[in-house]
Amino acid sequence: MSSTFAGVTGATPAMEAGGERSRAWPHRHLLDTDVLTWPQIELLLDTADVMGEIVARRRPRSETLRGIGVTNLFYEASTRTRVSFEVAAKHLSADVVNVGVSGSSIEKGESLLDTVRTLESLGTRVLIMRHAISGAPYLAAREFGGSVVNAGDGRHAHPTQALLDLYTLRRRVPGGSLRGRKVVILGDVLHSRVARSNLWTLTAAGAEVWLCGPATLLRGFEAWAAAGVGGDRGFTASSDIGAALRDADAVMALRLQQERMAAGLLPSLHEYSARYGLTRDRLALAAPGCLVLHPGPMNEGVEIAADVAAGPGSLVTEQVANGVAIRMAVLSLVTSVSLRPAS
Amino acid sequence: MSSTFAGVTGATPAMEAGGERSRAWPHRHLLDTDVLTWPQIELLLDTADVMGEIVARRRPRSETLRGIGVTNLFYEASTRTRVSFEVAAKHLSADVVNVGVSGSSIEKGESLLDTVRTLESLGTRVLIMRHAISGAPYLAAREFGGSVVNAGDGRHAHPTQALLDLYTLRRRVPGGSLRGRKVVILGDVLHSRVARSNLWTLTAAGAEVWLCGPATLLRGFEAWAAAGVGGDRGFTASSDIGAALRDADAVMALRLQQERMAAGLLPSLHEYSARYGLTRDRLALAAPGCLVLHPGPMNEGVEIAADVAAGPGSLVTEQVANGVAIRMAVLSLVTSVSLRPAS
Amino acid sequence: MSSTFAGVTGATPAMEAGGERSRAWPHRHLLDTDVLTWPQIELLLDTADVMGEIVARRRPRSETLRGIGVTNLFYEASTRTRVSFEVAAKHLSADVVNVGVSGSSIEKGESLLDTVRTLESLGTRVLIMRHAISGAPYLAAREFGGSVVNAGDGRHAHPTQALLDLYTLRRRVPGGSLRGRKVVILGDVLHSRVARSNLWTLTAAGAEVWLCGPATLLRGFEAWAAAGVGGDRGFTASSDIGAALRDADAVMALRLQQERMAAGLLPSLHEYSARYGLTRDRLALAAPGCLVLHPGPMNEGVEIAADVAAGPGSLVTEQVANGVAIRMAVLSLVTSVSLRPAS
Repeated sequence: MSSTFAGVTGATPAMEAGGERSRAWPHRHLLDTDVLTWPQIELLLDTADVMGEIVARRRPRSETLRGIGVTNLFYEASTRTRVSFEVAAKHLSADVVNVGVSGSSIEKGESLLDTVRTLESLGTRVLIMRHAISGAPYLAAREFGGSVVNAGDGRHAHPTQALLDLYTLRRRVPGGSLRGRKVVILGDVLHSRVARSNLWTLTAAGAEVWLCGPATLLRGFEAWAAAGVGGDRGFTASSDIGAALRDADAVMALRLQQERMAAGLLPSLHEYSARYGLTRDRLALAAPGCLVLHPGPMNEGVEIAADVAAGPGSLVTEQVANGVAIRMAVLSLVTSVSLRPAS
Repeated sequence: MSSTFAGVTGATPAMEAGGERSRAWPHRHLLDTDVLTWPQIELLLDTADVMGEIVARRRPRSETLRGIGVTNLFYEASTRTRVSFEVAAKHLSADVVNVGVSGSSIEKGESLLDTVRTLESLGTRVLIMRHAISGAPYLAAREFGGSVVNAGDGRHAHPTQALLDLYTLRRRVPGGSLRGRKVVILGDVLHSRVARSNLWTLTAAGAEVWLCGPATLLRGFEAWAAAGVGGDRGFTASSDIGAALRDADAVMALRLQQERMAAGLLPSLHEYSARYGLTRDRLALAAPGCLVLHPGPMNEGVEIAADVAAGPGSLVTEQVANGVAIRMAVLSLVTSVSLRPAS
Repeated sequence: MSSTFAGVTGATPAMEAGGERSRAWPHRHLLDTDVLTWPQIELLLDTADVMGEIVARRRPRSETLRGIGVTNLFYEASTRTRVSFEVAAKHLSADVVNVGVSGSSIEKGESLLDTVRTLESLGTRVLIMRHAISGAPYLAAREFGGSVVNAGDGRHAHPTQALLDLYTLRRRVPGGSLRGRKVVILGDVLHSRVARSNLWTLTAAGAEVWLCGPATLLRGFEAWAAAGVGGDRGFTASSDIGAALRDADAVMALRLQQERMAAGLLPSLHEYSARYGLTRDRLALAAPGCLVLHPGPMNEGVEIAADVAAGPGSLVTEQVANGVAIRMAVLSLVTSVSLRPAS
């Protein structure tokens, strides 16, 4: 009774945990969370638990990806996500190479597909990719023989962020389930790949999801909310921050992406902060013990007050720490498909 | 009956292959291909075969350079060459450090020789170097106690590219020999270090070499062609693309180095492409099964048509893959000289 | 009779050397040299001796920091210091991640403390940090749960440079002690973190320290010299280069930090060089065999003549080489405190 999951990687987390799995992970790439079924999400979160145990060791090291080439291809600036993937891959004993825009052929105008083919020929088996253009990782995945993991593409998707958010929430919410819990995503929804990817995972988890922000930063989402996201899953889009926060179990404040926002969407930072900043007063509207998340980097004093970011319900630090375990789980699962022997 | 080649590196490729070699590799540095004899080139290509077997393993890793400090010092932007050397060095278990222009003392105006001396004092034993100024690696080699490998200097030389081109061609040309084969190097010859280094290796291999491009981008090469390159080796320089491509066994299209080209050498990109771009129609002039190479990154639609780059004779992907094996061979051979015990 | 020093790192240098230490290292961070007692400095220099033996091995590698996350966080350009720390950490088997300004969230305006918290959550246990603002590492150390090592902050401090300078001098000065030796720090003292950190260590070693430079680049130091640095330790600040160099046992020329110097402090580079450049003629004033140091990168022909930099008393190359051993010692000692089990 062999497991698809085991693949060829030898020491998979499932095996390390000594367990056996009938649930299979079918995805060679991780481009967004929209295609993940709830059992697949649970498999990933369970795998992250195993990975978390490896991370907690004094000398965290698994042999899962020993000798496997992993490349961080980042066309946009990043500290936390790039380092998180780098640390995760090294914990799995992968050989990691970093390619950024500065100092690379990308400066010479090399095309994305040429770069992708080149990296594959150089031995890359997992391509972790951040790109300013929505959909770029899908284009890469069509060409690439290994696994592509989307580390953020334009406004579109940031699947590992959504998965680590879900993982972090589930570990903290009483009872361990988000079913029926009210989760508010607050702020610049329009430009947020984090919001989009979270929408899929949070609704899959059965949460009651509210998207809240100025009307100009919610454009299109009201119509989407009215149409639903498929099955019995739906969400609410509203500019009424009072209604959104009332009795919320968790609030995720989004970064105000000043570098992306076209002029005219907001009157001023100050007014934005006054009307939609997550302050202690506003948080008092939420349910007692309301959890607070932020994908980082934070603009403290803009979308989130410093005392809320450092407050008792804040999970910001846990999000970052859990990100390593989630990314180890993702790397392990996608390679269980892409490195499977041809047999 | 000890081999010079074995040096002190312990597990040399020759030993890994179980063979014995009487041919010795004498070069501590690899600065250009002009000083390589044909037996030395053959030794390097044979070593690359052994390295290719290591790369093909699931967990490619040789112990040849375990604990040896290798530094990538890149004063010019690069993805494929830098990553190729990094991957090659890691396959040999070296400790690799990357130093680029951005974020380094080079921004403070540190002199090249000061940087070279510093890196040696920090434990670098192999210095892989790309520099915009022709001859810079020669200057470095005069100061550096270990091995310098030229990863491209100005318009002058790019020896590992020429060696991987030769290696790729030999594996694909019927019979495995370039003797008497017509090989065309097409495009911006004037600014191309790739063309210069290939001239030495291809003529050493006995190929009939043609350099072809607009007269303004061949300046000086006609006179050189008339004088010959030494011994019975020679080449043809011509602006007649029809004559050049006729019955060619292989064509290497060069990158049109827009960032280097001084104004006035070309009327326009469009006209260049119309007259010297490698299109499917032009390729029909060549011998059946003509092989196509490009050192990358490609300007598709300028010096090479997209359908030619992806066509049946294209070796572009193989070039990149073979580059890792060639660079492993180079690192192994030069250190067999520079790490030799003083005894 | 257990040693505080041993900590939990298992193979500490003291243990590797087979010795036993009663002297304890108490500092979790290394932010400046001012807090180091002489016995602590000696412990560090002795540890560097052990580390130097590891470096001298063909495959330098200790298991001291196996699996420990070390991050180089460099907000300012650097080659030698960043690579020196990277090499040192790798020799100790640490997992090293580099974060520079370019291509990181720092470009997005992420706050220093947010970055520090993020890196800790990602598993960083030692944070090596260079920052343009004096005091920034102290701020980081207040937040960071592991060890912070200052790799240079503004004009304030550069403790590992001062320690490697002292280490290099002690190995070269006849008798191995600086007690009563005249050591001159020459040049742009005002902007030099190297001068400030050396002041503490050199006076702790009992040297007779002179700071010498144009009056505009000594501002405030005369008053400090008059007040003394505590205990019986003092130094001389003077613009009289003849008096300073007379019978000197060692001269440390400082980099003229053109990128930092506000207009108006110097008439011209040429005049600076003519009056305070360390030339062979000037060096003739010093004691026979006077040693010459420079923290690098050098502006040859400005603050130091090329023939002096390459002259018989020059320790410039040794400084760089010793820097690796010193940094290994620092990493080993600070982690012996920060990784100590809670027990």
